Amino acid sequence: MSSENNTHSYGRLFDFTVEVLKHMGFSQKDSEECAVVFLAAELRGISTHGVIRLGDYCKLWEKGRINTAPNIQIVHESPCTAVIDGDGTIGMIPARMAMRKAMEKARNAGTGWVCVKNSCNFGIAGYYAMMALEEDMIGITMTNASALVAPTFSAEAMMGTNPLAIAIPALSQPPYVADFATTPITRGKFTLAAKKGEKIGFGFAQDKQGNPSDDPTILERGGSMLPLGGTREHGSHKGFCLGSMVDILTGVLSGANFGPFVPPMVPYLSMPENQVGKGLGHFFGAMRIDAFMPAAEFKQRMDLWIETFRNAKPANGCEKVLIPGDPERESEIRIRKEGIQLSPQVEKDMEEISEKFGIPFRN
Amino acid sequence: MSSENNTHSYGRLFDFTVEVLKHMGFSQKDSEECAVVFLAAELRGISTHGVIRLGDYCKLWEKGRINTAPNIQIVHESPCTAVIDGDGTIGMIPARMAMRKAMEKARNAGTGWVCVKNSCNFGIAGYYAMMALEEDMIGITMTNASALVAPTFSAEAMMGTNPLAIAIPALSQPPYVADFATTPITRGKFTLAAKKGEKIGFGFAQDKQGNPSDDPTILERGGSMLPLGGTREHGSHKGFCLGSMVDILTGVLSGANFGPFVPPMVPYLSMPENQVGKGLGHFFGAMRIDAFMPAAEFKQRMDLWIETFRNAKPANGCEKVLIPGDPERESEIRIRKEGIQLSPQVEKDMEEISEKFGIPFRN
Repeated sequence: MSSENNTHSYGRLFDFTVEVLKHMGFSQKDSEECAVVFLAAELRGISTHGVIRLGDYCKLWEKGRINTAPNIQIVHESPCTAVIDGDGTIGMIPARMAMRKAMEKARNAGTGWVCVKNSCNFGIAGYYAMMALEEDMIGITMTNASALVAPTFSAEAMMGTNPLAIAIPALSQPPYVADFATTPITRGKFTLAAKKGEKIGFGFAQDKQGNPSDDPTILERGGSMLPLGGTREHGSHKGFCLGSMVDILTGVLSGANFGPFVPPMVPYLSMPENQVGKGLGHFFGAMRIDAFMPAAEFKQRMDLWIETFRNAKPANGCEKVLIPGDPERESEIRIRKEGIQLSPQVEKDMEEISEKFGIPFRN
Repeated sequence: MSSENNTHSYGRLFDFTVEVLKHMGFSQKDSEECAVVFLAAELRGISTHGVIRLGDYCKLWEKGRINTAPNIQIVHESPCTAVIDGDGTIGMIPARMAMRKAMEKARNAGTGWVCVKNSCNFGIAGYYAMMALEEDMIGITMTNASALVAPTFSAEAMMGTNPLAIAIPALSQPPYVADFATTPITRGKFTLAAKKGEKIGFGFAQDKQGNPSDDPTILERGGSMLPLGGTREHGSHKGFCLGSMVDILTGVLSGANFGPFVPPMVPYLSMPENQVGKGLGHFFGAMRIDAFMPAAEFKQRMDLWIETFRNAKPANGCEKVLIPGDPERESEIRIRKEGIQLSPQVEKDMEEISEKFGIPFRN
């Protein structure tokens, strides 16, 4: 770890993350399981879901809202499905367990589908979907989240940015990995614009009466994010369909909270008065390719799909068509070489945690 | 059927559709199976997928591109999956068979997942997803389609409007039924604007170099539709993820054509030189609710979900929040009472088919 700049080696940042989690009371094994996912976000260039979130978990832990010694259990099971109770712990632990269970089900039955309730934010959805790639399976991950998004025609935020990820293996091409929130931009972009004193443009947010807003601080004053599509004219009702589908599969079907009842992870949203389930919810799927066609044949077809789309003629002024997963993979190659660079704010947050917990961050 | 105006009874329009299909060579049973889906589109107010499409099928039939006496077969099977070869027939027939098969698999294994290859356009995706509601299952349907949509950064159309439908049962509330193309607007809206001599606005289409266009006739001159999100800034790469996910699950995984290789249904696109599979592809899923939690408990939770979202405070100038499926259900109640009204153009198309095939349309 360099003290001259904000660039850190994977190993040192991993160790720091593990020590922070252990300090909160997580076991060595659980801490490592979580740290892998935090660091995967950094490597894939999705730093909004990286170690920046350690601070959020510390705050939740201080409030007693994170169970660091969970008894995670399967509460319902069929040959190709299961429901897991995360016992109020950090999301990565039940999420990795759930994806493994989905893959085990798929190994035996062709496909596997596992819901998780009583969980908390789990980092990047794509991480779990990609676990399926190792066994020639298609992996699917969804989660619900703090209510920040207004349905079409609503003045109120009723659901989260509810991301969806799907990972699909190829042969000589790298895998197809789509991992996206069901909103036009992430919450992180609001924070960034606010810090820079910039407007965010229209089609992303509304004020508390439901009027269009380009103010990046509007979420803190009763405003809402808009679903993918932005305006009704540009298909926001389809973004609402997508986000609400994720909410139902992750929240309603699992026995977790859903919609506006999801326990918020952001400081400016208060805890809902009622709970309609336990914690927040996730949904995981694994489909064996060879439950549909020989895996080798499918992966050859995926190579052709990827090559065909990648070789499309670029639009005026654009360099090339990107296949889902390309930017994150390119980022990972670069960051593994150059190290993980943290923003000054995150650097400061880590220093604070380091000091408070007595865990060296730089040495 | 009235001769004074363009309003028709369900029964008469159903019978006319059945007779037209029988004239092409479909069996009585197959003709009825298809007519139900054509008419479901009319009832649900999605007339872009109703009897207007009969004309398209007549043209395909005249070109020998529709097999009216198909031998539809299951070509691959596991306890919870199957792949069906539609033998080049109209999409409704293998689609209904595939959804029934998915439900049968789900009955035995908890969930069922069925791909179809060697098929053709199947009408409204929502119809098949809704079949699952009868057995307290969640139904999922996807299909690929004629390449009219450009991926983000591409000048060329590479994939279809690739719709996705999901139907989820509730208790005293009507079911949640999302059924949407993965583009901001449908192809039908382009046709309509062109007929009226109106522009379509920006964020929906581009010209053949990939420049933004508001010209509704641009698709006929090498232009493309844009994925949901519209522009990169507003998240079109997420719409591309969604549309391409549908293309892969329906086209690549089934053994059908995918992307730009899908046999086009629109007259201004020529048949691709290469085929990489058979016909176009669909994907169907059925999940037993009680593979996750008791169905009665889930449906009560869905009631609460629906009531919570429906009762959100409306945005300034909006009447109320619509739950996915609300507009189509309201349309069906109205149209069952008032009859099915066809546009003058569709009325003319039906008259032409009537005359050509010698099947009375009005009497």
